[in-house]
Amino acid sequence: MLSKSQIRLITSLQYKKFRKQHGLFVVEGAKSVAEFIQSDYQVQQLFATAGSFAKMDKIPQNIKFVEISEAELKKISNLQTPQGVLATVSIPVTEEGGKNVVIDPNSLAGDFTLVLDDVQDPGNLGTIIRTADWFGISRIICSPGSVDVYNPKAVQASMGSLSRMRVIYADLPVLIFKTQLPVFGAMLEGTSIYRTKFGREGLIILGNEGNGISPEVADLIQHPVTIPRIGRAESLNVAISAAIFCSEVKRPSS
Amino acid sequence: MLSKSQIRLITSLQYKKFRKQHGLFVVEGAKSVAEFIQSDYQVQQLFATAGSFAKMDKIPQNIKFVEISEAELKKISNLQTPQGVLATVSIPVTEEGGKNVVIDPNSLAGDFTLVLDDVQDPGNLGTIIRTADWFGISRIICSPGSVDVYNPKAVQASMGSLSRMRVIYADLPVLIFKTQLPVFGAMLEGTSIYRTKFGREGLIILGNEGNGISPEVADLIQHPVTIPRIGRAESLNVAISAAIFCSEVKRPSS
Repeated sequence: MLSKSQIRLITSLQYKKFRKQHGLFVVEGAKSVAEFIQSDYQVQQLFATAGSFAKMDKIPQNIKFVEISEAELKKISNLQTPQGVLATVSIPVTEEGGKNVVIDPNSLAGDFTLVLDDVQDPGNLGTIIRTADWFGISRIICSPGSVDVYNPKAVQASMGSLSRMRVIYADLPVLIFKTQLPVFGAMLEGTSIYRTKFGREGLIILGNEGNGISPEVADLIQHPVTIPRIGRAESLNVAISAAIFCSEVKRPSS
Repeated sequence: MLSKSQIRLITSLQYKKFRKQHGLFVVEGAKSVAEFIQSDYQVQQLFATAGSFAKMDKIPQNIKFVEISEAELKKISNLQTPQGVLATVSIPVTEEGGKNVVIDPNSLAGDFTLVLDDVQDPGNLGTIIRTADWFGISRIICSPGSVDVYNPKAVQASMGSLSRMRVIYADLPVLIFKTQLPVFGAMLEGTSIYRTKFGREGLIILGNEGNGISPEVADLIQHPVTIPRIGRAESLNVAISAAIFCSEVKRPSS
């Protein structure tokens, strides 16, 4: 049984302002929720219909469980077709309050990091997280102007992969200026991605859906890299570009 | 000025049933509409606000133009933020009535064809069209159970690339059974995509978002191909898989 104040709290979490205020975000679906339970994230409350709860593995005792009806779930779900289970999860403390994190650039050595310059669409961000997780890339850094990773659509599109990721918001020019790692940028003009030697580490910068990489970030890119166009589309979706970069940098031969 | 019956007609086109009945679909945004005007598709009517119309190139005389207000556009647009221009476009006659097309398998020789087995999400289909267009792959065949390509979200996600594509719906087992071309399937188990010799032609089959390729289609696949997983995500989004296949088959070295 849900109280009115619980409903109000949970539905408010679709807005960034209230996610920050409460330090919470929402995860839906039994599979995703189970992945968050097993992760470093702290699941606070679990809401599930009786049928869905019965199918879940044992829930740790520190997670408060509330059984709810289908009708109640519909009231708090962000999905057109609610999936039986919804959880509130704590936003990791380092990011709470929305302060940008100062990253030690040396901490990024030894692997690739995706760096997103003002990606706006939550579905794109979630898909990028899922794709990076597939390719074993566990670091994503976003510019402060990028969409919030705890947006319900981003969480949903990540299909549980966010549970294995920390997405950090940081000032990109400062980060790029400080790093010793090679800095690759996905651009319309540059060396073909198929002729680029990526080596084993570096930053891969991807830009905004409409405008690409911002001029102040672009100026700092040592290696502009392009996915050669054969046909006639004007551009690629940013999650698609990110995927092709992930595939190329992790290719066995490169 | 829009009549009530015009508003009713245009808003009805968000539903497949009425698209079929009227043989029409909707395209939005000045750039996409301009691309459809220049294409083999037949644009029927153009609705634009005065400001947006002024910015467009000359419109061919056979296209009926109606100047509308922002408020009227809001009534007929499928977008949260309408983009000033909306057009109704004829569904090509071969596909009208929803009959499946019988494809001459020899007509597919000489290049790659993407074959989608029950892809359900219109955004995924549109993104696949846009990506295929970028890589110069101009043929997409969908199973009859796939989402309708004239769905407004699919048209929107294609970002104008649909204007350069014909997406055909056909019985996949029949098509695959008849073709002499190599048949590659994107599967969780198979030869690594990075070790597959794709040659210069073939069918590339991609499956449904939740269930992958259907068993009756999977049985006919000669070359199961997998994108090796390095990390822990359970699967890749189908548009992401499609993009990585497009990139690999068009790679200069392959």
